[in-house]
Amino acid sequence: MSGSLGIGLIGTGYMGKTHALAYRNVHAVMGGLPPVRLKTLCDTPFAKAEEMAAQFGFEAASDDWRSLLTDPEIHIVSVTTPNKLHKEMALELIAAGKHVWCEKPMALTLEDAAEMEAAARTAGVVTLTGYNYVKNPVFKLAQELIAECVIGTPVHFRGWVDEDYQADPDLPWTWRARIEDAGLGTLGDLGCHLVSMAYGLLGPIESLIGDMQTVHATRPMPDGSGHGEVENEDTASALVRFANGVQGSLSTSRSAWGRKNRLAFEVHGSKGMICFDQERMNELQLYENSGPKAQQGFKTILAGPEHAPYGHFCPAAGHQLGFNDLKVIEAAELLGAIDESRSAYPDFTAALEFEKVIHAIAESARTGARITIGG
Amino acid sequence: MSGSLGIGLIGTGYMGKTHALAYRNVHAVMGGLPPVRLKTLCDTPFAKAEEMAAQFGFEAASDDWRSLLTDPEIHIVSVTTPNKLHKEMALELIAAGKHVWCEKPMALTLEDAAEMEAAARTAGVVTLTGYNYVKNPVFKLAQELIAECVIGTPVHFRGWVDEDYQADPDLPWTWRARIEDAGLGTLGDLGCHLVSMAYGLLGPIESLIGDMQTVHATRPMPDGSGHGEVENEDTASALVRFANGVQGSLSTSRSAWGRKNRLAFEVHGSKGMICFDQERMNELQLYENSGPKAQQGFKTILAGPEHAPYGHFCPAAGHQLGFNDLKVIEAAELLGAIDESRSAYPDFTAALEFEKVIHAIAESARTGARITIGG
Amino acid sequence: MSGSLGIGLIGTGYMGKTHALAYRNVHAVMGGLPPVRLKTLCDTPFAKAEEMAAQFGFEAASDDWRSLLTDPEIHIVSVTTPNKLHKEMALELIAAGKHVWCEKPMALTLEDAAEMEAAARTAGVVTLTGYNYVKNPVFKLAQELIAECVIGTPVHFRGWVDEDYQADPDLPWTWRARIEDAGLGTLGDLGCHLVSMAYGLLGPIESLIGDMQTVHATRPMPDGSGHGEVENEDTASALVRFANGVQGSLSTSRSAWGRKNRLAFEVHGSKGMICFDQERMNELQLYENSGPKAQQGFKTILAGPEHAPYGHFCPAAGHQLGFNDLKVIEAAELLGAIDESRSAYPDFTAALEFEKVIHAIAESARTGARITIGG
Amino acid sequence: MSGSLGIGLIGTGYMGKTHALAYRNVHAVMGGLPPVRLKTLCDTPFAKAEEMAAQFGFEAASDDWRSLLTDPEIHIVSVTTPNKLHKEMALELIAAGKHVWCEKPMALTLEDAAEMEAAARTAGVVTLTGYNYVKNPVFKLAQELIAECVIGTPVHFRGWVDEDYQADPDLPWTWRARIEDAGLGTLGDLGCHLVSMAYGLLGPIESLIGDMQTVHATRPMPDGSGHGEVENEDTASALVRFANGVQGSLSTSRSAWGRKNRLAFEVHGSKGMICFDQERMNELQLYENSGPKAQQGFKTILAGPEHAPYGHFCPAAGHQLGFNDLKVIEAAELLGAIDESRSAYPDFTAALEFEKVIHAIAESARTGARITIGG
Repeated sequence: MSGSLGIGLIGTGYMGKTHALAYRNVHAVMGGLPPVRLKTLCDTPFAKAEEMAAQFGFEAASDDWRSLLTDPEIHIVSVTTPNKLHKEMALELIAAGKHVWCEKPMALTLEDAAEMEAAARTAGVVTLTGYNYVKNPVFKLAQELIAECVIGTPVHFRGWVDEDYQADPDLPWTWRARIEDAGLGTLGDLGCHLVSMAYGLLGPIESLIGDMQTVHATRPMPDGSGHGEVENEDTASALVRFANGVQGSLSTSRSAWGRKNRLAFEVHGSKGMICFDQERMNELQLYENSGPKAQQGFKTILAGPEHAPYGHFCPAAGHQLGFNDLKVIEAAELLGAIDESRSAYPDFTAALEFEKVIHAIAESARTGARITIGG
Repeated sequence: MSGSLGIGLIGTGYMGKTHALAYRNVHAVMGGLPPVRLKTLCDTPFAKAEEMAAQFGFEAASDDWRSLLTDPEIHIVSVTTPNKLHKEMALELIAAGKHVWCEKPMALTLEDAAEMEAAARTAGVVTLTGYNYVKNPVFKLAQELIAECVIGTPVHFRGWVDEDYQADPDLPWTWRARIEDAGLGTLGDLGCHLVSMAYGLLGPIESLIGDMQTVHATRPMPDGSGHGEVENEDTASALVRFANGVQGSLSTSRSAWGRKNRLAFEVHGSKGMICFDQERMNELQLYENSGPKAQQGFKTILAGPEHAPYGHFCPAAGHQLGFNDLKVIEAAELLGAIDESRSAYPDFTAALEFEKVIHAIAESARTGARITIGG
Repeated sequence: MSGSLGIGLIGTGYMGKTHALAYRNVHAVMGGLPPVRLKTLCDTPFAKAEEMAAQFGFEAASDDWRSLLTDPEIHIVSVTTPNKLHKEMALELIAAGKHVWCEKPMALTLEDAAEMEAAARTAGVVTLTGYNYVKNPVFKLAQELIAECVIGTPVHFRGWVDEDYQADPDLPWTWRARIEDAGLGTLGDLGCHLVSMAYGLLGPIESLIGDMQTVHATRPMPDGSGHGEVENEDTASALVRFANGVQGSLSTSRSAWGRKNRLAFEVHGSKGMICFDQERMNELQLYENSGPKAQQGFKTILAGPEHAPYGHFCPAAGHQLGFNDLKVIEAAELLGAIDESRSAYPDFTAALEFEKVIHAIAESARTGARITIGG
Repeated sequence: MSGSLGIGLIGTGYMGKTHALAYRNVHAVMGGLPPVRLKTLCDTPFAKAEEMAAQFGFEAASDDWRSLLTDPEIHIVSVTTPNKLHKEMALELIAAGKHVWCEKPMALTLEDAAEMEAAARTAGVVTLTGYNYVKNPVFKLAQELIAECVIGTPVHFRGWVDEDYQADPDLPWTWRARIEDAGLGTLGDLGCHLVSMAYGLLGPIESLIGDMQTVHATRPMPDGSGHGEVENEDTASALVRFANGVQGSLSTSRSAWGRKNRLAFEVHGSKGMICFDQERMNELQLYENSGPKAQQGFKTILAGPEHAPYGHFCPAAGHQLGFNDLKVIEAAELLGAIDESRSAYPDFTAALEFEKVIHAIAESARTGARITIGG
């Protein structure tokens, strides 16, 4: 088994499963990557870890994530625990020389994220953050279309990311409503994904003005003991200025009925426009001011093998990638980076930039002032 | 011909024609309204007025709009001239006791609009401003759905209005680029329509922060003499707070390639969501958190005779109203208001509120400060 | 009033109103056409005719359509009565030398339609049939795209036309269910429109095999006296072969819940595809196998002034024509034909070809045999 | 390793890879299934088999598929070779007591398929055919909506399946164009999928009339030696009658530019309608004639955890399954059937019914006669 990369995975929930599935299939899908060995799955209680290790195909189960630190056969650790736990785990894993694939956001506070980023940078391990949507082949197409000036020079940007998991006012209060436990609300859960896409399309955001709101200010306590306060935001919006001079706006809500994963953007350019909506993740909209005026219109481009790495999943266009396939592309990025001794994208350094923006939106919303994003 | 309302129309361009067509057909479409008499059409030069009077079916042509002031057989005058001319015309028409249907925006500056509003209010004539989109039967449906709590309590709002008539950087400079002649840019042309819809859905905006940008800073002079400066904005956006406590955002661009009339909004509610896009003006999207979860989804409601006054145009659903039909509904509102001695909606007083918002966005964009909209 | 064309209109219902509105506005919209004079509106009882004449702006009302035959000031007569009455009216009007705009289908039987066509052809009057959908500017765009080989050579065709006005099994029985009164069912109401579009795109249909079905075999009698038989078809479909060698299929239903006016087609070509749906009548879908593969996709072209005669209604693209505007374009075709002493399209001769197809579908459905359409 | 099911896979192409990926992940996704062991991967030449065995994670490679027959550790064999080879392989595998997951269509001729079906039925092994689209959670939702009478009684059906892999007339001739090698054209590649969906929704088809066409009659030989004949059909259509009395139509093309996987259907019911398009495979359209008329419309239901087994892939709605996930659901069906000693769906017996239909369409197209599908 020499040459293979041993995997530790902390967490067996929503994201934990996507990591497990990605590790299982990345080599078979992509070829040409170092093989992986599913070594240890960590969760609590132990019975849970054991059950899921059997299901996911890990060799071992553990209820002590620190056991991964000293296991020489483990090279990569995925951190998919609640965000509050990321920092401690990541710092110790980095210190132990492990490569780390950490779900987003990196941490509850910008200070914690910065500490993680500094540690990773210093240690020289490979890190990857779970900004899966920038791995979509049609997102890469969007980037290429911009790079190739197909829509000319970008002149304006709009982005939204909405879900409805907190739309129902009658949903009970949970720890997710408490800043100490959850940090930001929709900005941390959803907004940072949008920022990752904005960066990928237009580069850094220089300054912004934000506003935010807790639309359901209290929620019934699950034990029937009255109502608990919702401390973090349900909606947030910002007017942004990119470093390249483009203006734009961002908006996010976790209380948007009917939206299940509406992570959408428009890039307005001097010669055309690109639009995307993750709820139709295999489609990219492109308008070009070219050809006969009478025949101009928005084109719906269906993902296909012309849009790498779609072809690794399926040789036929329009057959659709799914969400879990994006995690496979992430895993390939991680393994490739390790194999080639390069940094992965987006690593902690890149992710820190995204997370600066969501915290700046929150700060601006609190103070009313325009915030300049630190370099 | 006693009992009929005599019409004067100033302007024979884009909007002038829509007014003429609306006057011609409103009685035939709606029934039950005072008959109209197409009396005098004004434009310059006289030959133009004469030609279009023949085409539109006016009894007389004139190159002197002031001739309308003293014509006792003219009761209503439509003002569809360039915005710069609205104020002078409206003030004199009001002073002459004419009812006035004035295209939007009312004026280049808020001060001028306020002066027009005060004059109209004092004179007691009926006024109507050309905010045609709020006359769409499916917009009225949206208002009713909100009023009936079908989507619960509104919690968030988003709106956009985009066209691409200034998207091409190579388009020559025109007077529309000069503030003295044109006033605001996209905010005046497009943004005020969006505000009219936001008001119709959620009521007054209390305060806002805005940003705006001239994305094509100069344009080639038509005579080849270098480049002229574009003084007004191509894009503008704002974070708004409604008086009812809801937050939201507005954004507009006249340089958005591919958008031809994308006047769109989302109203997020505590029980559902409503979405609309004028480019598919016969459709309203509705999501309700009701019924089996497995069967929930956004519904596309096609305009039909259940959505008054659609049935006056066509007894069969889904057969589509067009833009010009909206002007017929406006005309019906005007004639009905005169007939019933009530105010029309949106009259100068209502329109002034919309126009306060676009000027506030521009002011906030210039100063960086949050603007509170005056009562 | 010399030089103007006097209009008689028989019928004040759904189609009658569309004709009245079209006559009222066609000159104002289009310019350059002979003026019209709304002379006499016929309906029964007389009070109804009188009321609607006032609303629609006709000079006179009558409950005797034959009064039109001898009125020398009436040049054109619109026939918008129940289909059963078309033949008698058209034949007498033609014999009286009137130009005739007759709603579709021309008649209940093919024999009657053929008799009407022969009479019109012999008499040399101008006729026009109410196939409004082929007047859509984006339908003309589709025809031009085919003519210019933008999608190469057509290789396949599919078309559908569905509504839901007979979808509810509990709707009461009406005369529309009786062949003697109504003739064909969905084929006559809807199917012939689809055929008109198929012809306009690909030319004559040479032969076909059809099937049809009455899905709601009986309906409750309105007087509560049990159930009445539905004699004509709710659905009908056909496999067709065009004279140019292309195969295709047609299908129609008047019992298709949710479809309000889904008159849709696909033209598959050797280099691309064109798709259309009347429920989004301002859009045409175009796919071209050209340019980079990675950027190919279906384009949504929004109707605009590049698509004549859209610009006569509105100078701005994407602002939407409506159903009634299509009738204005029909009226312009009629007036232009009379003015230029040419035939209008589709006249009785063209329409007879469309109606041969729907009767052939019904005949094939009854006999099971392939039907060759007579020349 | 006792208790696990050993897998042999023949073929490493498009479908071969999907089977490999499905086997790799089905246990991890679903839980509660017998574990699988990826034993032997067969392809030629051996180097290819060896390379792909390494990539896909099989223990052994072979260029002799018959080696699987006698391997006692292999319990299931996937047959993903060219269709021409299915019969021989399946018959020998069945005779050897292996469970068989065979790609569709089962065979080039109906006789061969019938022979395979009889062998499987007699032998009592579990078989599964690769009709992946009926495994889509939203397809199951469609079935449930019909079963629960949400759209009332079905009254009409329409289905299409189009791709464009043979749309370009300049594509070179291949063996796929020769009946001896490939059997049917688009009916075998695509049409049988549509039939599987029609059956799943409305049950057996009783009789039909078909038509078909080779739109590109010859293709350039790859060696430049002139043109070769295309023997099988590019398009095929049929008017069908289901055993339950419903009429409908089917149509398929492999030469439909822009269509990448447009496998779409409409089920018209007495109370509503259901529509689906595989190019947006995570969406189901539902119209119900219920609630206020003014609020009726087609609903777009996004796949989510309410639609089993979506939740096994992702706990969050709207995050999208992909094509390869459908193969995982197929694999789960196969393993579950073996585990529970029941037949899988669709097994060879079910698939034979689907394939009867495509051959009947071809036969009817050749003879012109209505074909009754044998029991």
